[in-house]
Amino acid sequence: MLLRRLYSTAAHPARFKLPPTIKQVLSANGSESSTTSVTGWIKSIRKQKNITFAVVSDGTTPEGLQAVVSKERGTSPEMLKRLTNGTAVRLTGNLIQSPGRGQEWELVIQEGDKNAIEILGDCDIDTYPIQKKSLSIEYLRDNAYLRARTGQIAAMLRLRDSISKNLSRHFESQGFTYTHTPIITASDCEGAGEAFRISPIQPTTPSLSKTDASSDANTPIEFFSRPAYLTVSHQLHLESFTTALSRVYTLSPCFRAERSMTGRHLAEFWMLEAEWNLATRCDSIEEICAFVEGLIRTSVDHDSQDVKALWAEKGMEVEEFKMFRAAFDNAQPWRRLTYTDAVEALSTAYVNGHPFEFKPVWGESLSSEHERWLAEVYVGGPVFVTDYPIKLKPFYMRVNEDGKTVACFDLIVPHVGELVGGSVREERWDVLSKRMAEHGLLPHPDQNEDATTDSTYQWYLDLRKYGGAPHAGFGLGFERLVSWVGGIDNVRECIGMPRWTGRMIM
Amino acid sequence: MLLRRLYSTAAHPARFKLPPTIKQVLSANGSESSTTSVTGWIKSIRKQKNITFAVVSDGTTPEGLQAVVSKERGTSPEMLKRLTNGTAVRLTGNLIQSPGRGQEWELVIQEGDKNAIEILGDCDIDTYPIQKKSLSIEYLRDNAYLRARTGQIAAMLRLRDSISKNLSRHFESQGFTYTHTPIITASDCEGAGEAFRISPIQPTTPSLSKTDASSDANTPIEFFSRPAYLTVSHQLHLESFTTALSRVYTLSPCFRAERSMTGRHLAEFWMLEAEWNLATRCDSIEEICAFVEGLIRTSVDHDSQDVKALWAEKGMEVEEFKMFRAAFDNAQPWRRLTYTDAVEALSTAYVNGHPFEFKPVWGESLSSEHERWLAEVYVGGPVFVTDYPIKLKPFYMRVNEDGKTVACFDLIVPHVGELVGGSVREERWDVLSKRMAEHGLLPHPDQNEDATTDSTYQWYLDLRKYGGAPHAGFGLGFERLVSWVGGIDNVRECIGMPRWTGRMIM
Repeated sequence: MLLRRLYSTAAHPARFKLPPTIKQVLSANGSESSTTSVTGWIKSIRKQKNITFAVVSDGTTPEGLQAVVSKERGTSPEMLKRLTNGTAVRLTGNLIQSPGRGQEWELVIQEGDKNAIEILGDCDIDTYPIQKKSLSIEYLRDNAYLRARTGQIAAMLRLRDSISKNLSRHFESQGFTYTHTPIITASDCEGAGEAFRISPIQPTTPSLSKTDASSDANTPIEFFSRPAYLTVSHQLHLESFTTALSRVYTLSPCFRAERSMTGRHLAEFWMLEAEWNLATRCDSIEEICAFVEGLIRTSVDHDSQDVKALWAEKGMEVEEFKMFRAAFDNAQPWRRLTYTDAVEALSTAYVNGHPFEFKPVWGESLSSEHERWLAEVYVGGPVFVTDYPIKLKPFYMRVNEDGKTVACFDLIVPHVGELVGGSVREERWDVLSKRMAEHGLLPHPDQNEDATTDSTYQWYLDLRKYGGAPHAGFGLGFERLVSWVGGIDNVRECIGMPRWTGRMIM
Repeated sequence: MLLRRLYSTAAHPARFKLPPTIKQVLSANGSESSTTSVTGWIKSIRKQKNITFAVVSDGTTPEGLQAVVSKERGTSPEMLKRLTNGTAVRLTGNLIQSPGRGQEWELVIQEGDKNAIEILGDCDIDTYPIQKKSLSIEYLRDNAYLRARTGQIAAMLRLRDSISKNLSRHFESQGFTYTHTPIITASDCEGAGEAFRISPIQPTTPSLSKTDASSDANTPIEFFSRPAYLTVSHQLHLESFTTALSRVYTLSPCFRAERSMTGRHLAEFWMLEAEWNLATRCDSIEEICAFVEGLIRTSVDHDSQDVKALWAEKGMEVEEFKMFRAAFDNAQPWRRLTYTDAVEALSTAYVNGHPFEFKPVWGESLSSEHERWLAEVYVGGPVFVTDYPIKLKPFYMRVNEDGKTVACFDLIVPHVGELVGGSVREERWDVLSKRMAEHGLLPHPDQNEDATTDSTYQWYLDLRKYGGAPHAGFGLGFERLVSWVGGIDNVRECIGMPRWTGRMIM
């Protein structure tokens, strides 16, 4: 028989398990002296005459694990020389409660075991970009491929992982379905004209020469038989799913060809977006605010090791940290404030001499300085600003009874600004149809209901025709949440491999 | 004081809960006669003289819930008329064990309660695209915005949700970090020249006129100061994270401007990709195969209601379903077969008269017919084909001792074909450097280690210079998994809003 069962001695694959990570080793509260193997990179090493101390990290915890190696125990000078910062090793030893300060456990390398120290990958220490000395943010951006080796970036990546898993659990408990909406789309949800356009490059020889690519881009072919863009928001498509699955969410990349160079914008960023059929009819905005607040409070472990590691740079004594903590420690709900009241408060402060660059005026956008003043000074914590003027917000937000404002909110948090934006969606066919026509999003502004002409947005209007229930939703900027929770000033340090105008390393 | 605490009576937001979905109502095993409200769409309705039966679905279960409405109980004829297929309603009644067949529970509308039936959204039944009658797949593709109202598409979307959550749990238990790798990239991992190219459109007026967009595309501007593409794979970037976090994965969109019209390819598809530092040194390929098999077995609930609903169309008696079930019911590991043995088996079959279109030859790709024969006929289940010839596989796969093959595998499953592809990654600097130079991916094919010239792929090579440990990884086509598990013939029905050449609805 030609077929042979290779590896017939393998354990049942469904039970296959990788060996524990350092996090798993430490959280298992292993008994002393049990033989333990860990794999990771040397973060720091101190070689003394008869003993060597090395901190090894596998990236699963902020601290790593200290290993203690005695010279007599079979370590050759050649081996010791190769043990430098950045080297990948597998160490086998006894896990004991550390007699030294600064760590609870340490790994003592076993006597006489030649395989106790195994070098998995040498590090060229002379050119290693991640030296122990303090590295500038800009330098690390240039060396993005290795910057996750630093404590800050690794903690940020674990924070993203932790928050997204918690978000997911919370949504599941509330009956939501996780969905995948398209990245390539025919529509530009917010109509800001800052979308990226896509086109195929023609099949070329495997070489990826830049000249070929550029010349192809000059003769675009509509791969999809119509112009295609990268999505700036998943909301409209999520609404389509809502009208069948009731409650849906996605955590997905979004794109904006924004030429902004601020610390709050990326060309590629991740958005958490959710849409659901409303449970309450009388106080919909409060339902969304309460949902969003509950979601964030549940999903952020504001006391985690990684959060502490991230704030360590600024220090726990700064006002910014205290304000962040208070938002989670205080049991009382975050403040709700109408846009009208917010402008009134801002105006009073302006009249009383607060040096705003822009005078607060009802009907105009809140500027960044206004938002920050509201959150940091006036409220001293997160604030939901609700019911903005109709002209400031997109066509899909539900028009309030007053005809001047829409049922929406922005959640503004201290030191970051707008973190979440959401609204009740306009479910009334006639009102929406009129607003879409005003925005030039329908081919027939005469509101001919029977118009069958194809339009990029016709389907969105039609959702209201076939059992469209009152519903609401929001979008949360994932990097901004990470920025707030980790006290990270620039969103470029809130994502592994950031992209912004002029910059795309890797 | 201007600021007022709106909604001061609101419950603590962290405790805010949406009312239960139909799935939650049914799985709570509620006691009879408790007052229950459900919200959803009427899927079917039977109006008899004194009684009306309506099945309501909120998209959280395949069956929905049957509601029973007696005419005497306050339902006006006008209201009854509006209750049609597709109407969104909120129904309040008593949940009782159903005396009828076909369902365990039913909702009996309460006597005298005027709010027992609330219409949330009327449905224009004359033009409603999702009529009860059987709808063709092509028709539903044209009406993508509403097709999740059908049982098949809704079940598929729930299946995606369920599998991705289970995958996530399994990865977490094995110490992996969920990461976000970039969508916009400078590199084309597989060098096939089938990437999409992106460019900004200049800010225009809010109108999204096609002419504007096209003319802008004719004068591309390098937003990132170098050509930018949509990623075809996240592997290379994941490897960068692996070299700091040890074990990482992502479930993320990938893109290919492939002009294929088969049922196995999409222009936008989701890939599950993982990379990790190997635990075993002696039998690395088996470690990956065992990991992948364990992951799939754990993450697929092959006996779920949704899986049954999806297979109902084909019927549980078909050979295809039996073969699918057996892969999960059988405790023995899925088969492993080297490429060499696979070609030998194919050749024997060919010589014995099996009518393959392409003659199986060592050194050439397995064609689709070869793969399917191996899985469906030769093995009768999933099969890992390992150790392909070096020339058939990309530059990053680890070269075996024989110098002719690479340490890789394809997991081939019956009726779908290739589901997963993975390999040990080449961790040896000198071997990788040579292979990259051969593929034209390095500026200096003379292997000058000190070359500092910038290159799109230089960082990938450099990962091996600074503690690069032996590691491995794989990519799993998410839609293909859904196709296999749900018995769905075309991947266009395995994603909510499919995109392929010439087609992008919505």
